[in-house]
Amino acid sequence: MLIVKKFGGTSVADAERIFNVANRLIEAYKEGHKIVVVLSAQGDTTDDLIEKANEINPNASKREMDMLLSTGEQQSVALMAMAIRKLGYPAISLNAYQCDIYSTSTYGNARIKNISTERISEELEKNNIVIITGFQGINRSGDITTLGRGGSDTSAVALAAVLNADLCEIYTDVDGVYTADPRVVKNAKKLSEISYDEMLELASLGAKVLHNRSVELAKKYNVNLVVRSSLTREEGTIVKEESNVEKMLVNGVAVDKDISRIAIVGLQDQPGIAFNVFSLLARNKISVDIILQSIGREDTKDISFTVATSDLKDALKVIEENKNRLKYEKLLHETKVAKVSIVGGGMATNSGVASTMFEALYDENINIRMISTSEIKISVLVGEDDAERAANAVHEKFRLDQINNTQNH
Amino acid sequence: MLIVKKFGGTSVADAERIFNVANRLIEAYKEGHKIVVVLSAQGDTTDDLIEKANEINPNASKREMDMLLSTGEQQSVALMAMAIRKLGYPAISLNAYQCDIYSTSTYGNARIKNISTERISEELEKNNIVIITGFQGINRSGDITTLGRGGSDTSAVALAAVLNADLCEIYTDVDGVYTADPRVVKNAKKLSEISYDEMLELASLGAKVLHNRSVELAKKYNVNLVVRSSLTREEGTIVKEESNVEKMLVNGVAVDKDISRIAIVGLQDQPGIAFNVFSLLARNKISVDIILQSIGREDTKDISFTVATSDLKDALKVIEENKNRLKYEKLLHETKVAKVSIVGGGMATNSGVASTMFEALYDENINIRMISTSEIKISVLVGEDDAERAANAVHEKFRLDQINNTQNH
Repeated sequence: MLIVKKFGGTSVADAERIFNVANRLIEAYKEGHKIVVVLSAQGDTTDDLIEKANEINPNASKREMDMLLSTGEQQSVALMAMAIRKLGYPAISLNAYQCDIYSTSTYGNARIKNISTERISEELEKNNIVIITGFQGINRSGDITTLGRGGSDTSAVALAAVLNADLCEIYTDVDGVYTADPRVVKNAKKLSEISYDEMLELASLGAKVLHNRSVELAKKYNVNLVVRSSLTREEGTIVKEESNVEKMLVNGVAVDKDISRIAIVGLQDQPGIAFNVFSLLARNKISVDIILQSIGREDTKDISFTVATSDLKDALKVIEENKNRLKYEKLLHETKVAKVSIVGGGMATNSGVASTMFEALYDENINIRMISTSEIKISVLVGEDDAERAANAVHEKFRLDQINNTQNH
Repeated sequence: MLIVKKFGGTSVADAERIFNVANRLIEAYKEGHKIVVVLSAQGDTTDDLIEKANEINPNASKREMDMLLSTGEQQSVALMAMAIRKLGYPAISLNAYQCDIYSTSTYGNARIKNISTERISEELEKNNIVIITGFQGINRSGDITTLGRGGSDTSAVALAAVLNADLCEIYTDVDGVYTADPRVVKNAKKLSEISYDEMLELASLGAKVLHNRSVELAKKYNVNLVVRSSLTREEGTIVKEESNVEKMLVNGVAVDKDISRIAIVGLQDQPGIAFNVFSLLARNKISVDIILQSIGREDTKDISFTVATSDLKDALKVIEENKNRLKYEKLLHETKVAKVSIVGGGMATNSGVASTMFEALYDENINIRMISTSEIKISVLVGEDDAERAANAVHEKFRLDQINNTQNH
C-alpha cells in the first residue's frame, strides 16, 4: 500500500516525539508499505516566527511572512529524515519546491493547484520514506506560499490524491471524530466512520478535527481518509463517501464559540436590501453564517447574522462605511454567543429532528436566538454561557452515547 | 552604481540590528544605487540548528543538514525585507532556489557553479532592494546545498561577479584588514588597500577577515571588494588587483594557533618516501602546510609537517593505518604550536626580509621550529605561548605601525 501520513506540530515538538513518530513510520515501512509523510512545523515554531516578524513589522507583507514561516516545516522534515536514518532506515526530506507543489498566488492562504509526482515517485522507488513539508506551496513566480489554517491536512490529502494513495492518515491529538467534543460532553463517543459531508458540516460547525478544505479535497478525489491519534494505537475514524454507521438521525453535536452576532436595525424596507448588505460583505471576503431577517417597526426591516469573531471588526467597519448607501438606524453586535449544531445524514428524511432538538433546549430552559438548517444539520444560536449545557442536553436527547459503531474493518 | 552588500549573522542578530542594517541599506538606496544584499543566518541560529540536529543524529546526512541549516538564512532575508518595508522602502527576499544559485552537489561544502541573474535583475528593475540568502545553493537535483565556512562571503562575491556589480562590500565586526590582529598586536594599523594575493596569503595564514574562496573568486572575476565595519562608518580596506599601498616589504603579520605539528620519525631512506606520505594525506583530503624533511639516525629520514588541528585526528589515523607500507619508527604530534607569518608584495625582490624576521625573534629569545616561505610570505612555527610575543616583535621590527596608507579614493 501507498500511505500518506500527516503529523501535526505537537507530534514533532521535540527530539523524543520526533523519534516516536519515526518509529511509527518505520513500523509501517517494515510491513512493506510505501510511506509519504507530511509534517507541520515543530510545536511553537510558527508562533515564535510570527512573533519575530511582529517585532519588526506587524503589517509585514504576506509574501515575506510565507518566506519566513515556511522555514518551520523545512526544519521539521529535515530533522525527521535524520531521525529515521539514525534508526537505520532510508529517508529523504523534500520541500514544496522540490516536489513542485504549485499553488495559487494568495500568500498566507493559497490553494494547491497541482503537484508533480515525479520526484516523490523517484524517491519512493529508491525505497525512501519520503518526508514532505506541509502547509506550503510555490506559485507561478517560484515564490513560497502557505496554505492557511489546516494547511498541512490539505497538503496530505492533496498528495494522497495525486499519488493515488491507498490511504491518507491524519494523526492528531484526539483519537478520532466524536459525537461531540469530549471536553464539553462527557459521554461523547467516538465514531468509527463518518461521511465526507457529515465531516464537512462538523468541521464548519467548529469541531476542530480536520480542516474543511482537506475534507472537500478528500471528497472530490475520493481519498480514503482516516483521523487517528499520534499518541495511542486506537483505530481512528474513517471519513469516506458513504458512512457504514447505522443511519443515525444525528451523528454529532458541535459547539462553536468563535462567532459573533451582528444586527442591522431599521433598514429601509426596499427591494434588494438584503442583497446589498450581503454582497457588500462578500466583496470584502467576510463569510456570513446564520441569517435572520425580521420586520422592524414602521416599515423597516432588521437583519441579523453571525460572522466569525475574527471577522467582526472588519464586518462592522464595512457596514459603517456604507451607512449612507445601506440606510439603517442602528448597528448592534454581540460576541457572547455560541452556535450549537447537530449533524446527521438521516436528518433530511426525518421531520422530527428539529423539534426534538428544540425540546431538549426548552427542557433546559435555554433561549434560542437564531436557527439555521441544512439538509444534514441544524444550528441554533444560544448565549455563550448556555453552550455547554445545550450541547450536553442535545447529546443526551439523541442518545449519542449509545451510538452503534458497526465497524467493518 | 550596482552594489552588493553582505552582512554577517551578528549584524542581523536581533530586531534592532536588523533595523540598523535596513537603515544603512536605505541610505545607499536613496543615493540612487541599486542594492543587492546578502545575509547570513541570525546570530546563533545556525549553531542552535546544529545542536538540534546533533540531539537527533550526530551523524546526520549532509544533505539533511543543508536542508535544515538553510532555513536560517531564509529567515534573515524575510525579516530584513519586512524591516525595509516597515521603513517605507521596497524590498524583496529571495532564496537560492529563486535566483538559481546553482552549485556542485557536495553538501556542506558546495561550490557555486553559476547563477542566473534573471529574477534578480527583474526585481532590481522594479526598484526593489533585493535581499538574498547567503551560504546556500541548489544542485542539479534541485536539492539545497550549503557552501561551507565563509559561504556567505562567497555568495556575495559570486553575485557581484555575475551581476557585474560596481562594488562588493563585505560588512564584518572589524573595520578592515589590519597589519596584524589588533587583539594581539596593540599597534596594528588598518590598511586602506591590499592586493587579492596578499589578502589570500593573509586569509590562509589565519587572519579571519575574509574567506579564501571569496577572495579567489574576487580575483578571478576582478570584483571590486571592500571590507568594512557594520558598526561604524569607517572606510574599510579595498581588496583589488594591484594594491596602491606604497610597496612595503611587509604588509601584515598573521598568527594561526589552530595548527598542529606531526613528525614521522625513522622513515626508511628510499626514493619516493615523501611522495608516499603526502599523496596518502592528499587522497584523504588532509591539507598539509609547512613541511620539513631531515636526515635521521642510521640512514633514516624524519618528516615533519603541520596540519589544521581539526584534521589532526584523521591525519594520525591514516598514517597509523599505513604503518606497514610507510615503514617508520615513531609517529609524534604536538598541538601547542602556532604559525607566525609575514605577508608583503615587495618581499620577493628583497632578500633581507627573512633575516630581519629571524632577528626580531632571536632578540625576543623565541625558538623557531620550522620555516616556510613563498614569494610573498614567510611563515615560522613557534611554541603557542610565544606566538603573541613573536607577532608583536615582528610587527615592531618592520615598523608596521607606521605604514603609509596612500589612499586614492
